[in-house]
Amino acid sequence: YKLLIGGIVPRPIAFVSTVSRGGADNLAPFSFFAGVSSDPMSLLFCPANTPEGGLKDTLRNILECGDGGGTGVGAGFVVNIVSHAIARPMAVCAEPLPHGESEFDLIGLTRAPSRKVAAPRVLQSMLSYECEAMQVIRLAPGAPGGGNIVIGRVVWVHVDDQVVDEKMHIDPSALDAVGRMGGLDYCTTRDRFEMPMGLVRGSG
Amino acid sequence: YKLLIGGIVPRPIAFVSTVSRGGADNLAPFSFFAGVSSDPMSLLFCPANTPEGGLKDTLRNILECGDGGGTGVGAGFVVNIVSHAIARPMAVCAEPLPHGESEFDLIGLTRAPSRKVAAPRVLQSMLSYECEAMQVIRLAPGAPGGGNIVIGRVVWVHVDDQVVDEKMHIDPSALDAVGRMGGLDYCTTRDRFEMPMGLVRGSG
Repeated sequence: YKLLIGGIVPRPIAFVSTVSRGGADNLAPFSFFAGVSSDPMSLLFCPANTPEGGLKDTLRNILECGDGGGTGVGAGFVVNIVSHAIARPMAVCAEPLPHGESEFDLIGLTRAPSRKVAAPRVLQSMLSYECEAMQVIRLAPGAPGGGNIVIGRVVWVHVDDQVVDEKMHIDPSALDAVGRMGGLDYCTTRDRFEMPMGLVRGSG
Repeated sequence: YKLLIGGIVPRPIAFVSTVSRGGADNLAPFSFFAGVSSDPMSLLFCPANTPEGGLKDTLRNILECGDGGGTGVGAGFVVNIVSHAIARPMAVCAEPLPHGESEFDLIGLTRAPSRKVAAPRVLQSMLSYECEAMQVIRLAPGAPGGGNIVIGRVVWVHVDDQVVDEKMHIDPSALDAVGRMGGLDYCTTRDRFEMPMGLVRGSG
């Protein structure tokens, strides 16, 4: 497992907000997270089972409250992107809390209403994707650490004016996203380089 | 779509080698790539349909040659991790080649035999995961840019002695992986920081 955690790097971080059927919200980071496609506009993340084989709150909330997708305002979930400025409160949420306590209240981040789903977004996140669960794949139900894949259709995007231009290009310096490495390590996205097109011809 | 490409960052890069039923090999990078879980030990990547709605060579090869998983030596695929030293040849492979030409021959990377699957691995990659396709999910068959998800069970790992210690910890400096950003941008994993555990108590 360490060979996955240390080798598949750098990983983007989905800071996922959900709400239970009873209305309690939850916020947790997941770094097994990827875009899927533009058709449908979709992304996925992989919340493993707990060490006891149970469901993490995030997945339980999505399974409890999922509305099947595309049927208007549903429970869904929000993927909030993590800038360096909110990396520390995000990391706090990686540790389990007593059930029923909200991470929002603990770490000083602010709930903001979502447009299409019931779960709140994180106001301090500069980019948030509201999603409806399209499909949940459970690879090993009941197994400790067993894999699950949540595929979400993106139904609304909140983006701060500071990070996006009129052509919908995102400025990586303004977003200042952090990535997950192995162990307790994270990386910034500040050391960047460009790879031009046309390399095939250029390389002879 | 730009909001996915520019926002879900930094993305790890799966440099995927496959082989066709006829024996022609292929090598292509995908940055919608994530680990899934330790049980089963698995990862996934998302090769979108071509702009015409067809299958990219990587996915065609996997669908043609998939052996169903777990049945011994099969076609499968290999995910090679991309260090900074091989970023340029990797980027060359992001551009389409005439069908039948091999990226290996074009870019000067070396085929190395795999242990459990027919597809070769990239000798110059310091970390390669041999995988058997467990499941292929096609979200929009035939649609231009439509999404596909390939879930692979990891059946063998090749790791260079220089990047791993006896406890299977990977040294991020030695691996020196690169990540994908939006546009033509990449990032290194050289600017790292640590986030200690125990933040919940620390933050009061």
